[in-house]
Amino acid sequence: MKKNPKMSVIIAAAGSGARMGGLSKPFLMLGRRTVLSYSLETFASLPETREIIVAVNPRDMRAAERHLARVRGRYKISHIVEGGKLRRESVANGLAKTAQDADLIAVHDAARPFASKDLVRRVIAAALKHGAAIPAVPVKDTLKRVSAGRVLETVHREELWHVQTPQIFRAALLRKAYQKYRGATPVTDDAQLVERLRANIVIVESDDGNIKLTTPADMLHARLILRRRLRG
Amino acid sequence: MKKNPKMSVIIAAAGSGARMGGLSKPFLMLGRRTVLSYSLETFASLPETREIIVAVNPRDMRAAERHLARVRGRYKISHIVEGGKLRRESVANGLAKTAQDADLIAVHDAARPFASKDLVRRVIAAALKHGAAIPAVPVKDTLKRVSAGRVLETVHREELWHVQTPQIFRAALLRKAYQKYRGATPVTDDAQLVERLRANIVIVESDDGNIKLTTPADMLHARLILRRRLRG
Repeated sequence: MKKNPKMSVIIAAAGSGARMGGLSKPFLMLGRRTVLSYSLETFASLPETREIIVAVNPRDMRAAERHLARVRGRYKISHIVEGGKLRRESVANGLAKTAQDADLIAVHDAARPFASKDLVRRVIAAALKHGAAIPAVPVKDTLKRVSAGRVLETVHREELWHVQTPQIFRAALLRKAYQKYRGATPVTDDAQLVERLRANIVIVESDDGNIKLTTPADMLHARLILRRRLRG
Repeated sequence: MKKNPKMSVIIAAAGSGARMGGLSKPFLMLGRRTVLSYSLETFASLPETREIIVAVNPRDMRAAERHLARVRGRYKISHIVEGGKLRRESVANGLAKTAQDADLIAVHDAARPFASKDLVRRVIAAALKHGAAIPAVPVKDTLKRVSAGRVLETVHREELWHVQTPQIFRAALLRKAYQKYRGATPVTDDAQLVERLRANIVIVESDDGNIKLTTPADMLHARLILRRRLRG
């Protein structure tokens, strides 16, 4: 395991096109700050983080530059890049800007403001050791496979995990995966491209607090989590 | 489709043995009422409901009888039965008490207080038409199949749905499924037993509001949902 590893962080803040109340999710207010600022703060506070690259929706570009102008130094932001329609296009654009001497590259969704510092540290440690690591929680619900509105079967959930971000990879591994497979069939996370290289990817057990903000109800839930944190 | 169908409702309120703060979940307060009372009210308000059978944890039996004594009539409660260690034992004990002339039997988790009347109505209609119906929401997260802490593959989630309750069945169908398969390998919901009969089970699209209260964080989330409802 390398001492003092250098990590470049790509924060995917381009959203999915679905907006909540006219604003892209990363720039919505959560407490007194934007959703995006929570991830920026968490990553910037880690000594491993050498730079943060933020990929934003082209329509948010000006607002993002204005919003981030004063905090670029504090948050170690090296680049603000335009995201693409697909999440992986945003990540690819960010990847092109990462420092050549990075040991690790982390990819994180801006819509997950509550990834804890402890979680990120554990994912970093596992990525250094195994090459690729992703946070996840076990599936607890009953899942069914359904076709045309009819149940086909109950899915064995024992081996199924809900995957989250940040996903962290040795830099060479993620670059190779994107080079080879970025044009391939749809993917929903970065690990999926790395899986195609048949590389080892380990799971780091996360918690339900690392929620993804998708709906307005999620924003309410997030505000509740925040209030509880502020209280103690 | 039968006119004026008679439905018996089994509410599984025995919990999983995991308790929150010393009390079984169904008897925790949510607003000014118990968690259980929300389901009781929803089902009792439907003309299809002829009776409600509540299966409680044996250790809660006395508290349940005391708590429900005054509302048995209002909530159409015909029996309070002891639940078993396994959920299906609770349902089987309830099933034994259902009225012989029931057309439909609904099984619902007390830990889902926010199943809406509209949802229950739609599940009833689908069960009358197809024999068995369950509410569900599509899986949105990325899921991985994991073994010994390592990712095996990304799961195709297009056909996967998170299953909820109430699950509603033609009475004869559910009785047959329990008669034949209740001793079989572990199951996580009632539909799974009915699947073994190769019977048709249809999905009724539900919503994220029909949450299951599992952790203390879920209770907070539930209180938030409740506050929003009371406001608007």
